[in-house]
Amino acid sequence: MNWADEITAAAKRITPYVLRTPIATVRLPGLDHPVEVKFEQMQHTGTFKARGAFNSLLSSDVPKAGIVAASGGNHGAAVAYAASRLGHTAAVFVPEMAGPAKIELIRRAGAELHVVPGAYADALDAAIEYEQATGAMQIHAYDAIDTLAGQGTLLREWEEQGLEADTVLIAVGGGGLIGGSLAWTQGSRRIVAVEPKTSCALNAALSAGSPVDVDVSGIAANALGARRIGSLCFDLAQQHLHKSVLVTDDAIAHAQRLLWQSLRQFVEPAGATALAALLSDAYRPDPDERVAVLICGANPAPDPFSG
Amino acid sequence: MNWADEITAAAKRITPYVLRTPIATVRLPGLDHPVEVKFEQMQHTGTFKARGAFNSLLSSDVPKAGIVAASGGNHGAAVAYAASRLGHTAAVFVPEMAGPAKIELIRRAGAELHVVPGAYADALDAAIEYEQATGAMQIHAYDAIDTLAGQGTLLREWEEQGLEADTVLIAVGGGGLIGGSLAWTQGSRRIVAVEPKTSCALNAALSAGSPVDVDVSGIAANALGARRIGSLCFDLAQQHLHKSVLVTDDAIAHAQRLLWQSLRQFVEPAGATALAALLSDAYRPDPDERVAVLICGANPAPDPFSG
Repeated sequence: MNWADEITAAAKRITPYVLRTPIATVRLPGLDHPVEVKFEQMQHTGTFKARGAFNSLLSSDVPKAGIVAASGGNHGAAVAYAASRLGHTAAVFVPEMAGPAKIELIRRAGAELHVVPGAYADALDAAIEYEQATGAMQIHAYDAIDTLAGQGTLLREWEEQGLEADTVLIAVGGGGLIGGSLAWTQGSRRIVAVEPKTSCALNAALSAGSPVDVDVSGIAANALGARRIGSLCFDLAQQHLHKSVLVTDDAIAHAQRLLWQSLRQFVEPAGATALAALLSDAYRPDPDERVAVLICGANPAPDPFSG
Repeated sequence: MNWADEITAAAKRITPYVLRTPIATVRLPGLDHPVEVKFEQMQHTGTFKARGAFNSLLSSDVPKAGIVAASGGNHGAAVAYAASRLGHTAAVFVPEMAGPAKIELIRRAGAELHVVPGAYADALDAAIEYEQATGAMQIHAYDAIDTLAGQGTLLREWEEQGLEADTVLIAVGGGGLIGGSLAWTQGSRRIVAVEPKTSCALNAALSAGSPVDVDVSGIAANALGARRIGSLCFDLAQQHLHKSVLVTDDAIAHAQRLLWQSLRQFVEPAGATALAALLSDAYRPDPDERVAVLICGANPAPDPFSG
């Protein structure tokens, strides 16, 4: 697999449709050194997932039956948005536990919405049933080459924008974003995986030597709560990951509050998880190590304009 | 007055203390063309006012009695923050009508806080009394050369970052920000002043031929509700302003919602006022006119983390 070519082709495909998200170098209370930040939560539908969704749709022949996806929220919103922009129909199966804010996000993005009682696995079952019945194309949230290549455009873009950091901290759910980042950097920068202690599919897989099921809970679970890390990501992590670290829900909540108080960025817990590792010393850089943090998503619940 | 020199000197002074705020070129629903945006609401204490505050303190001999300011909120927070960073004491007089979110913002920034019953004029009276009694240095919110020069660094910085727009839309309260922007650009770009219909001190002054008192009300009043435009701004506007336009509270609220839904930026009404002019056609660019919008502040009430 030539990931550099895949990701460069993805970038070319999706550029007309995605936002080149802004960057800044910031000083934050409690940190001795400035940190490079990319504000990917400004991306369409509020997360990086629009990249993978557009790349998946633009690199396939979409059937007349359209698109189907299962999602805890963010992936479904991104798929619905991309399908709508490109003129395809999309059916999105979302578990009830995703909550009203994320369900409304998907509805607004233009999807045919199916709210399924239960958790993500139940929504996935329903989506597979729909796929088989209709011939719609399933877009996987993280464990697919086109998805990973789309997410990989983020780090490629950041480098074009002048990223200087030795080390980039990235939150991990199912592994699409960090997988794409590892696929692009191939060890040329240190990539640090940050997961909540209560939903740590990558960390558990690295300890076990292969992907294993984990229990998921905690404040970031509806975005980062994958039960099992994607196999593409796992292979890339075994080769290229610098470190896997875990953070508490308290550390995530603190990082969320600090992003608001210092930068007026109102993000969901998953969006603050990478920063939490730095603030809580779960990752301690060397004194001269230049560090970057990716803010990957901002779909908090409740939505401040839902009222 | 050589404003170019003043503003360049100000930029040199304040650079170690302020954030170089990020920019992006975005496509927004309802607009045919991409718009350049600068996210100045990420600035320390949530508005551009940190620039003028730092410049005022760094270009003066601050007396032992410290700093005093009167403010509806944002200026007070900026002055308190700058004073605290530079090791000075600050007394900030804030009118009760500023509301708990802005009052808490000032408290957190490290000021000696005086909440004054009534409106801004009452807080200003109290601040002047304090100045006379103690010898503290008064920092005016907008009508002072050091304040204007500090705010002028914003457009200078945006140009360094590659601003391409023919036209920049800027919200106006007392005139510090737009005054500084006009002082820097001197007619080299079109600057459009955007005010709420219900608090339009600049527009009224331009109609009358000189600064006049106006009534202020509406959703942006606690940030843009100056009763009378600053005289420095007025003179610059008479020479260099391209256009003065007015927007309704509904248009401001719509722009606020759109900034959240499209870019996950949660701003106060004043921060969305410039964009409102574009969305509501209060300002209609020519088909080939490149337009930029400044997001100047994000201290919404209630603060999402106040609970």
